[in-house]
Amino acid sequence: MFDIALLGTGGGMPMPNRYLSASLINYRGRKILIDCGEGTQVSMRILGWGFKSIDIICITHGHGDHIVGLPGLLATIGNSGRTEPLTIVGPEGIEEIVNGLRVIAKYLPYEVNIIENPKKVNLKVNKDNMVVVEDNNISDIIINTMEVDHSANCLAYKFSVQRQAKFNIEKAKENNVPKNLWNLLQKGETLEVDGKVYTTNMVLGDNRKGIKLSYVTDTRPIEDIKEFIKDSDLFICEGTYGDDGDIDKAIKNKHMTFREAATLAREGKVKELLLTHFSPAMIEPESFANNATSEFNNSTIGYDRLVKELNFIDD
Amino acid sequence: MFDIALLGTGGGMPMPNRYLSASLINYRGRKILIDCGEGTQVSMRILGWGFKSIDIICITHGHGDHIVGLPGLLATIGNSGRTEPLTIVGPEGIEEIVNGLRVIAKYLPYEVNIIENPKKVNLKVNKDNMVVVEDNNISDIIINTMEVDHSANCLAYKFSVQRQAKFNIEKAKENNVPKNLWNLLQKGETLEVDGKVYTTNMVLGDNRKGIKLSYVTDTRPIEDIKEFIKDSDLFICEGTYGDDGDIDKAIKNKHMTFREAATLAREGKVKELLLTHFSPAMIEPESFANNATSEFNNSTIGYDRLVKELNFIDD
Repeated sequence: MFDIALLGTGGGMPMPNRYLSASLINYRGRKILIDCGEGTQVSMRILGWGFKSIDIICITHGHGDHIVGLPGLLATIGNSGRTEPLTIVGPEGIEEIVNGLRVIAKYLPYEVNIIENPKKVNLKVNKDNMVVVEDNNISDIIINTMEVDHSANCLAYKFSVQRQAKFNIEKAKENNVPKNLWNLLQKGETLEVDGKVYTTNMVLGDNRKGIKLSYVTDTRPIEDIKEFIKDSDLFICEGTYGDDGDIDKAIKNKHMTFREAATLAREGKVKELLLTHFSPAMIEPESFANNATSEFNNSTIGYDRLVKELNFIDD
Repeated sequence: MFDIALLGTGGGMPMPNRYLSASLINYRGRKILIDCGEGTQVSMRILGWGFKSIDIICITHGHGDHIVGLPGLLATIGNSGRTEPLTIVGPEGIEEIVNGLRVIAKYLPYEVNIIENPKKVNLKVNKDNMVVVEDNNISDIIINTMEVDHSANCLAYKFSVQRQAKFNIEKAKENNVPKNLWNLLQKGETLEVDGKVYTTNMVLGDNRKGIKLSYVTDTRPIEDIKEFIKDSDLFICEGTYGDDGDIDKAIKNKHMTFREAATLAREGKVKELLLTHFSPAMIEPESFANNATSEFNNSTIGYDRLVKELNFIDD
């Protein structure tokens, strides 16, 4: 339904079994890539979800371990036959960075649009592409961002998949909506028949809970993150250091320990925490899992190409 | 003695078992990197030759598959503790490309010097670094370049390891060189004693054959390459296409088939041909080996982290 794969779970330097930061969302066949560190293309090739269908690339910040792979990937997407525009979202300064990197990917068979430091981006998911739209009401995915506390301009992302309300037959009858309009109204159209206007909300019940994914790397665990990630179905968070004893390094380098990430997860009341962005000095992140689970039980230590599937839950 | 490792043997896109173009020379502990495609750092980490000792980076051309990994590698070299300057050599335009890519590696703890399109670079190999020197006579390695025929400005490289002549006792006596000067003169010094000047060539015999490595990618097999690679101990050459039937693609994309590379090897009278830069469409380059060996018997199909050791041969 709404799948996310960790493509690379390393921070700093790429390792033989741990490529650098990147994750890939697959929603109805369309893709959103988050970050693009070295190794992203290799991991994508192993995963096999394809290159051509990447419509949106969200970059957290301009440090090499999150963006080195971008120009190569843009070229590969070009070679895959894409001609539809692609949108890159990122923090303040991202345009300069992307333009700098594109010195080696100047000519692409598709347009690249850059959105710098937006608070919100609405996405409409069509069969053959996913596009940025102005109108909140017709969006299938809403991306919210927040500026976090790292040594570069850095954005946290939240992806909220909207879920249409159920068709409510009683409500349709109450509103005297002719039966032949039900189907079109349910699809979101507004219709005028014999001088009377019929709208979608005349036939649909209450909004239903969608899917919420939040993505937070690289940053210190600032207070505002708790509200930002509130009630997420999945909270993907950096855990650069597993060992509690590395707290001084975490503070100095503006990162988090597993325990800090797990505390955010608990206080933000998320359903599940997935840790990523491990320091190259940490050979076996799993061995520090207890530092996360003791704060927040439903914590998972990520690894390259771990896939999580998120589904709508009927309430 | 003079070792070279293929770090990545792919062209175009990085593959799970075939990273993009890069090779690493190790000479007396100091390193020269040639090209830096995606995956270079990962391959270097597996190889284990270290990052800090990379003194020179030679870039053939500015296509992504030869240079995407550069800014990340420069950062990693910085993290390894290097403070000595590092020199990047490349074709016309390389400075603009390196500066563009450095948008994500602006602050490094060492200086980066760029030499654009030199015909020749002389390297002196010291214990703790390898530096560019003006004086031909004191160089340990001479790099020659030639412009080749690709769809971007592109340089072929030749690395000639110089070998000091043997001490010739008869010659020293003939030239009436005092015995106490022999050792210093052998080391390359020029001395003046009692108004008489003594030079190195008063005590050394004829020059001895060194080591010659040539490196040619990406290009069509133009005539001048034969003279450039003449008598190389090892000729590393692109073989983007194994199948003879792909000759039209090779011409169109300005690359070579295995057979074309092997023909250059034979006509350039090299000792050994090592093929690299395989198209991602070629799953098993080894299966086309015969197209090379039938032209030039001592042909080897490269693979990631294949190491060749070249030694001085006593004549």
